[in-house]
Amino acid sequence: MESRSGRRPGSPQTREAILDAAVEAFTEGGYAGTTIRAVARAAGVDPALVMHFFGNKDGLFDAAIRASGLPLRELGEVMEGDPEGLGERLVRRYLSLWESPEHGPKLRAVMSSASSSPAAAGMLKEFITSEVLQPLAKRLGVDNAETRGMLAGSHLIGIAFTRYVLNVEPIASLGGEELVACVAPAVQRYLTGDLPLA
Amino acid sequence: MESRSGRRPGSPQTREAILDAAVEAFTEGGYAGTTIRAVARAAGVDPALVMHFFGNKDGLFDAAIRASGLPLRELGEVMEGDPEGLGERLVRRYLSLWESPEHGPKLRAVMSSASSSPAAAGMLKEFITSEVLQPLAKRLGVDNAETRGMLAGSHLIGIAFTRYVLNVEPIASLGGEELVACVAPAVQRYLTGDLPLA
Repeated sequence: MESRSGRRPGSPQTREAILDAAVEAFTEGGYAGTTIRAVARAAGVDPALVMHFFGNKDGLFDAAIRASGLPLRELGEVMEGDPEGLGERLVRRYLSLWESPEHGPKLRAVMSSASSSPAAAGMLKEFITSEVLQPLAKRLGVDNAETRGMLAGSHLIGIAFTRYVLNVEPIASLGGEELVACVAPAVQRYLTGDLPLA
Repeated sequence: MESRSGRRPGSPQTREAILDAAVEAFTEGGYAGTTIRAVARAAGVDPALVMHFFGNKDGLFDAAIRASGLPLRELGEVMEGDPEGLGERLVRRYLSLWESPEHGPKLRAVMSSASSSPAAAGMLKEFITSEVLQPLAKRLGVDNAETRGMLAGSHLIGIAFTRYVLNVEPIASLGGEELVACVAPAVQRYLTGDLPLA
């Protein structure tokens, strides 16, 4: 049996079409503003098929995040170069990710959904822990790498939350390089400085 | 006409009863998990009366936040004492607020609702700007008081978000005094240190 769009229900192409529609819907409407029904309509399939592939809205959101290709791991590239300039490179790269037209809206959707979506919360946790900042701290060979990565990550998440989600002034319109210059020393200290940790 | 509870609809006591029920409901269920209907039921009134007093769920949430007595302004008390110990006193007081049985659950409700509720977002903004951190920075007589207050506030918000809302390890179970010792110097620098601001 063929669907009206010519795709077989249940085929990998159908799954792809649903995911494409989901990425677009979540990016525009966030987690709370997106329904399975609307994604199904945009993909030209029955809502039951969306449930078949992804279980529920959390599962769909999780898959959409993974499919949307957020380049968080690429933040690890900032390791290359002088260790003393690491904080500055990390903050600059992080802000440019948030400000890119490609990734910024997706990141906003992830952060503003973190309290309602376990998948979004999980993604932010991964950013701080296993995926990005702790490996980075570990490669530095410093003690307490996990705690260091988490302190740096907490600070970076707070900056993005106030600047890009809450849009609080004056942080929202502070120049990017001015913000980098203010925040980089704090992040650098968390990653490589003397910390009063046991 | 008397309601079954003996309170006159529209009386100040009825408004109080609705607010009490709202504070309890939002604290337990957060913004997303609370309905006008459930608050009305708990207060023993008709949902239409809740709408009459508070307009909509945002209005009710906003009033509940104000009624719940979050002692954010009391954070200003940390001004008393040695200016060089300000960051440490502020971080310690802030964490103890989050960890108090009375205020912690309300603060969690506010922060996890910030993306779905304009009132919650507004409250976090007030914390960073007009209510707490900027006045604190202004009283220090430093330049760029607004930007300084906002940088400190962004960091503090990120710490609470990862520790109390996302519950990321190892920050979630780090000892309070260890966390104070790590974060205080960064907050102190934002409030009184040399910053590369124009």
